[in-house]
Amino acid sequence: MNNPQLNKHGELQHLLSTEGLPLPILRGILDKAASFVDIGDRLEIRNVPLLKGKSVFNVFFENSTRTRTTFEIAAKRLSADVVNLNIGSSSTSKGETLLDTVDNLCAMHADMFVVRHSQSGAAHFIARHVAPEIHVINAGDGRHAHPTQALLDMFTIRHYKKEFHNLRVAIVGDVLHSRVARSQIHALTTLGVPEVRVIAPKTLLPTLVENLGVQVYHDMSQGLRDVDVVLMLRLQNERMQGAALPSAQEYFKYYGLTEEKLACAKPDAIVMHPGPMNRGIEIESSVADGKHSVILPQVTFGIAVRMAVMSMLAGVKV
Amino acid sequence: MNNPQLNKHGELQHLLSTEGLPLPILRGILDKAASFVDIGDRLEIRNVPLLKGKSVFNVFFENSTRTRTTFEIAAKRLSADVVNLNIGSSSTSKGETLLDTVDNLCAMHADMFVVRHSQSGAAHFIARHVAPEIHVINAGDGRHAHPTQALLDMFTIRHYKKEFHNLRVAIVGDVLHSRVARSQIHALTTLGVPEVRVIAPKTLLPTLVENLGVQVYHDMSQGLRDVDVVLMLRLQNERMQGAALPSAQEYFKYYGLTEEKLACAKPDAIVMHPGPMNRGIEIESSVADGKHSVILPQVTFGIAVRMAVMSMLAGVKV
Amino acid sequence: MNNPQLNKHGELQHLLSTEGLPLPILRGILDKAASFVDIGDRLEIRNVPLLKGKSVFNVFFENSTRTRTTFEIAAKRLSADVVNLNIGSSSTSKGETLLDTVDNLCAMHADMFVVRHSQSGAAHFIARHVAPEIHVINAGDGRHAHPTQALLDMFTIRHYKKEFHNLRVAIVGDVLHSRVARSQIHALTTLGVPEVRVIAPKTLLPTLVENLGVQVYHDMSQGLRDVDVVLMLRLQNERMQGAALPSAQEYFKYYGLTEEKLACAKPDAIVMHPGPMNRGIEIESSVADGKHSVILPQVTFGIAVRMAVMSMLAGVKV
Repeated sequence: MNNPQLNKHGELQHLLSTEGLPLPILRGILDKAASFVDIGDRLEIRNVPLLKGKSVFNVFFENSTRTRTTFEIAAKRLSADVVNLNIGSSSTSKGETLLDTVDNLCAMHADMFVVRHSQSGAAHFIARHVAPEIHVINAGDGRHAHPTQALLDMFTIRHYKKEFHNLRVAIVGDVLHSRVARSQIHALTTLGVPEVRVIAPKTLLPTLVENLGVQVYHDMSQGLRDVDVVLMLRLQNERMQGAALPSAQEYFKYYGLTEEKLACAKPDAIVMHPGPMNRGIEIESSVADGKHSVILPQVTFGIAVRMAVMSMLAGVKV
Repeated sequence: MNNPQLNKHGELQHLLSTEGLPLPILRGILDKAASFVDIGDRLEIRNVPLLKGKSVFNVFFENSTRTRTTFEIAAKRLSADVVNLNIGSSSTSKGETLLDTVDNLCAMHADMFVVRHSQSGAAHFIARHVAPEIHVINAGDGRHAHPTQALLDMFTIRHYKKEFHNLRVAIVGDVLHSRVARSQIHALTTLGVPEVRVIAPKTLLPTLVENLGVQVYHDMSQGLRDVDVVLMLRLQNERMQGAALPSAQEYFKYYGLTEEKLACAKPDAIVMHPGPMNRGIEIESSVADGKHSVILPQVTFGIAVRMAVMSMLAGVKV
Repeated sequence: MNNPQLNKHGELQHLLSTEGLPLPILRGILDKAASFVDIGDRLEIRNVPLLKGKSVFNVFFENSTRTRTTFEIAAKRLSADVVNLNIGSSSTSKGETLLDTVDNLCAMHADMFVVRHSQSGAAHFIARHVAPEIHVINAGDGRHAHPTQALLDMFTIRHYKKEFHNLRVAIVGDVLHSRVARSQIHALTTLGVPEVRVIAPKTLLPTLVENLGVQVYHDMSQGLRDVDVVLMLRLQNERMQGAALPSAQEYFKYYGLTEEKLACAKPDAIVMHPGPMNRGIEIESSVADGKHSVILPQVTFGIAVRMAVMSMLAGVKV
């Protein structure tokens, strides 16, 4: 089967999903990101000219200041020209089709699209239609995938744990609606993590989630037992207003990560969260700010990982 | 009479309208744009330093992500600093006059204003008031003018047809509300196109449109007969909801460009559209994507034409 | 007492308020700004590389296109990478705390935050929490302070009046709700202006305003008598709709600056306004555009002052 992310030489042409991302490419991104973390630390002037003269379009059909900002910074540190397009408030409201919008942006000689869309599959759809010299990065599509988030999570895990083959990782929370969780599971599996757990109430789990190769827990103290890594998910407010959950308080009681529950994990476990956090709902403040938390390093590494993806794509020859 | 677009040496000081734009300047813009199209094709690094250290302000009193983006890209490829101002949501709502807003932006040492405004004449008004070292580009004012759109249309026609003196051109659709149509008619006339037609229902034509030097048709198959170029206009949704039109379906039946109607034109006719398109209303999808369509090259050429205008203005000595 | 704006070497670490800003630093900013005014006048290419490779984040929790633009231009003239974040419409609406938002932006390796917030004290709060290599500039916090506005006002006064020690300055209007007025009073006092007056109805004055070292007037012709500088304040529309004011017309009658009232001031008095102006409410058009007005030079100097503050902060060693 054709892998839509790779060109005919097996190089990364688009980053759409961690599903089907070959291990050497995944490792290559993490290695390249490590070189940019060094740059961030060492140099007075941090910009590198790898994307000089290239145009990166942040095409956000769904608003997300935080994600857009991380891509914007990454692109500017690579010396690209960055154009931000908040499409939600623009052409689509004028009756233009998604494909016409994309064709138009291509015709402006974009080199790279960073796409956020509320519909699952939108980034794949766009990637199928762009000219071969244009690269697409999925910055989150519906419930489907958020690959750069998963990649920065993998970078963070490797940074603190060095190896993947001996880890026990738990993903906690609203797996059902989470593109982050899907992307994490695929990346962890590819990197050889032997045991991936998901911990959630039944109402927040996809049917047949076991088929993704994970073990299912409904109880936090059981699910967190002896894990090395805890990946918390964001609980979206709109879910709490729906029928899926009784109340924020009750959710916190059963699935909020507290110091007490975290004590079930290994003593050197790390706690991660993709942000923005709901303190007191999915995570206790003392845990978010505590010694196990690597939530802020995740953000820093996220810039480096996005720089790595962009520079790898820009280095591909047509 | 004083031409508000020219300085005392007859050089382009502002680009406000294709009306009154002297033929040598119009040709000069197209020639300069051609050089930038070469740059876009040839070089690995496409940016040129012609506007280095200059500040281009995109001052949009009316939202238009697409047009703003094309100017932003053009300015960045010229190495300008670009500042985007969405004024609609800002100072004017604080009771400031248009002139005070403009004076303030001038005092920030802008070098160039790209102005979009819902009122006809706004760009002229601003151009009359700015200091002599500041240049104004009209990016669309009310129903009046959209000169860079018309210039990129001329560039596209010249690209495919080489000459203007032997062409028959039809403009189809809502001429009444269209700043694009007005700008196209003036540019075509200046470039020596011997026969310009407009095709529209009476309700979508300005009174005395013949005085612009065009021939009026109400029937598509007659109006398109033996034309070399078909310039489609966008039908704005708000018009369709008004009394001017019976329904989108009926409009498409009589004035939508279908393959059948297009067969009346010359076999090598080209079809253009300023975007965004309403497929199935003013244009059939198979035509928009067909072999006569040069709609996407228009967009590419639009960047080059805007670069040409900006660099010509920046080269003017005060 | 610890001055939150200074580092342990007594250098400017953050610009939060003109209150407590030591005289040598205040003068240093004005002197540095003077050098940038020269650059703006003299050079063809105005950009200087002082912030090359640095990331300036415009973090606006409250929308202000004008203020954001002046900081964006200043940062770009210093060759910084600028990222605009309109936070109001983003993370805070997702339930994230202010501190989490700030921590996240810090983790993206920002070098400088320009912060606008509707809550008094927000910039101080943020400055207390950021890492030592990050600098915070207050771009307006609630009713508290707007130091760069006051500094550009001081620059303008010095430009036209050369000295401060012999001046009589009047601040006119809604002092109660004005962060600009507070910042002006502290700066004028620090610079040694012997007589600062405030002119306003009782309902628009803070209680115990005299404690700030100003003389209070309720009558314009008395308050303006023999002053060298008139600092008008903006009357915000929302105040006029409240109970604080009878009507815009009545306000203009008593406190609007007219040519007639201005005749009470010295013949060479200068008139200033932070913008945007409400013509016919707080100021007569003929005064705003008249020979005493230095309102537009204020804007030009504002860019230079912001460049001065940013480059001074960037020059601080951790």
